[in-house]
Amino acid sequence: MTSIAMIEAAALRLAGRARRTPLLSSPFLDAIAGRRVWVKAECLQHTGSFKFRGAWSAVSALPAKARARGVIAFSSGNHAQGVALAAQMHAIPAVIIMPADAPALKIDNTRALGAEVILYDRAHEDRDAIGAHLSEDRGLTLIRPYDDPQVIAGQGTMGLEIAEQAAAEGITHADVLVCCGGGGLTSGTALALEARAPGLRARSAEPAGFDDAARSLAAGAIRRNASLSGSICDAIVTPEPGQITFPILHRLCGPGLVVTDDEALQAMALAFLRLKLVLEPGGAVALAAALFRRDEIAGNDVIAVASGGNVGAAVFVQALARFG
Amino acid sequence: MTSIAMIEAAALRLAGRARRTPLLSSPFLDAIAGRRVWVKAECLQHTGSFKFRGAWSAVSALPAKARARGVIAFSSGNHAQGVALAAQMHAIPAVIIMPADAPALKIDNTRALGAEVILYDRAHEDRDAIGAHLSEDRGLTLIRPYDDPQVIAGQGTMGLEIAEQAAAEGITHADVLVCCGGGGLTSGTALALEARAPGLRARSAEPAGFDDAARSLAAGAIRRNASLSGSICDAIVTPEPGQITFPILHRLCGPGLVVTDDEALQAMALAFLRLKLVLEPGGAVALAAALFRRDEIAGNDVIAVASGGNVGAAVFVQALARFG
Repeated sequence: MTSIAMIEAAALRLAGRARRTPLLSSPFLDAIAGRRVWVKAECLQHTGSFKFRGAWSAVSALPAKARARGVIAFSSGNHAQGVALAAQMHAIPAVIIMPADAPALKIDNTRALGAEVILYDRAHEDRDAIGAHLSEDRGLTLIRPYDDPQVIAGQGTMGLEIAEQAAAEGITHADVLVCCGGGGLTSGTALALEARAPGLRARSAEPAGFDDAARSLAAGAIRRNASLSGSICDAIVTPEPGQITFPILHRLCGPGLVVTDDEALQAMALAFLRLKLVLEPGGAVALAAALFRRDEIAGNDVIAVASGGNVGAAVFVQALARFG
Repeated sequence: MTSIAMIEAAALRLAGRARRTPLLSSPFLDAIAGRRVWVKAECLQHTGSFKFRGAWSAVSALPAKARARGVIAFSSGNHAQGVALAAQMHAIPAVIIMPADAPALKIDNTRALGAEVILYDRAHEDRDAIGAHLSEDRGLTLIRPYDDPQVIAGQGTMGLEIAEQAAAEGITHADVLVCCGGGGLTSGTALALEARAPGLRARSAEPAGFDDAARSLAAGAIRRNASLSGSICDAIVTPEPGQITFPILHRLCGPGLVVTDDEALQAMALAFLRLKLVLEPGGAVALAAALFRRDEIAGNDVIAVASGGNVGAAVFVQALARFG
């Protein structure tokens, strides 16, 4: 299980590798939210999302011999790029298994970061079988996207930074809203805050219709999403909270927050206008919750994690056209 | 005249007020430029541009009695917002004189930052006369956009940060490309680098057709622009380098760089895709020069200042539509 000692050890391994991302604010956002809004700009992390933290943490924690054989991941998105870059920086092989219908840009980006991309046919092939075969054949270690103690520890390093940055701003009590998929970033952040900023409380933010974390927290047990497609916030849609992450969320997090796709797009337009940040829809749901769920949040300050910015021009233009 | 001591004194006054903006990079940009590209993300500064630094420096350097009477500035853009916020944070009056045909968003933003906005008719009114009358009447101090030693000192604090950040990355020799209008940011940066990172050299970057700094540097004497309208990079178009800034540029800067409007738009699209930053055209010319003028730059590293991000949705969408 991930402990604060593991998170702090991950922070040492990440020092000089991951960026320490800034905590930004704007009086215009404060006016909308009715309180001070602080945005942890994790979209500025290497590869455009927080995922590099967990990937680097997990890869760097492997025994040297296993690491040298290489790593493998299943992902068409931010986790793929995080693992690819972490492997490239370690000069080890990375195999990323992606659906053949993934956007060309994501495939190209992952390849450009030095990974071997293996495409599979979603309809007719079993990606787990492909992965198992490759792993055995080449001795690759699987890097899971969230349900892995060292991945959670890596994401938790963002929580350490928030604890320090909040203290520097004099913020002792606040909700910390985290864009939540499988719960790796939310649980890691919650553990870091528990130890280093006990007045700060992590809370999950999710898109409506894909609010497995909020419903699981309310029920006290894991609940699945009815569907896995149809949200513009695709980067943070997962079947259900992880077996390792959920007990942490359940013990430490406040009630989950839920926003609509339109609210996520509006938060993107406001981040463009007021913060000069590019956010992807799934990376904007925490900011959307901070801005548009004021009655569900207490206190004079709220911290929203802007977890990623890997959005194509078409979706970004849509956000600006509707809300810019 | 601005000295390194004045810049360091300004840095002390700015501590905890201005943001220390990050130095970002992307392997994808390195591949285009043929060397490491480092982007000083000054678009993340308060009010979306570096202008807050100079405004805060100048306002905070005023004698207390003069400061209490308030300040006045002529600007329809980034300087207006920088002065408005600096005055608001000092709880003193600010009057900003803007042309009546300035974009409504800029007028609204400046008012929202607490300034009194006075509009004048460009065709039929003399803004200097309006300003002189108001200054005398209310005892307001004029804050010039660049030709003021304390404004230059404030902008120079960005140069101090670059010197520290470059040293931390092991960069000892590099050109530092600065989006250049009247030369306040370029001259302040040049002075800071001269004292704190003598292997780094400031160079101006400008839009084609409005390259007064480049031509003045080549001639060794101030040269005017033939026109003041028609560039998409409006934020950095000025008649000519300043009387105070030009001697500093002449003494310290390398040859000026010039890019096309299309190259600035392409740099905006690349900053969107690879850095998750929103840049305005005038704030993207230094990055454009770093990416597209490789033969005019020497060394393994180049640092480009992304000086501002105050761009409307329409122009940003144009950049993404053409180059995204």
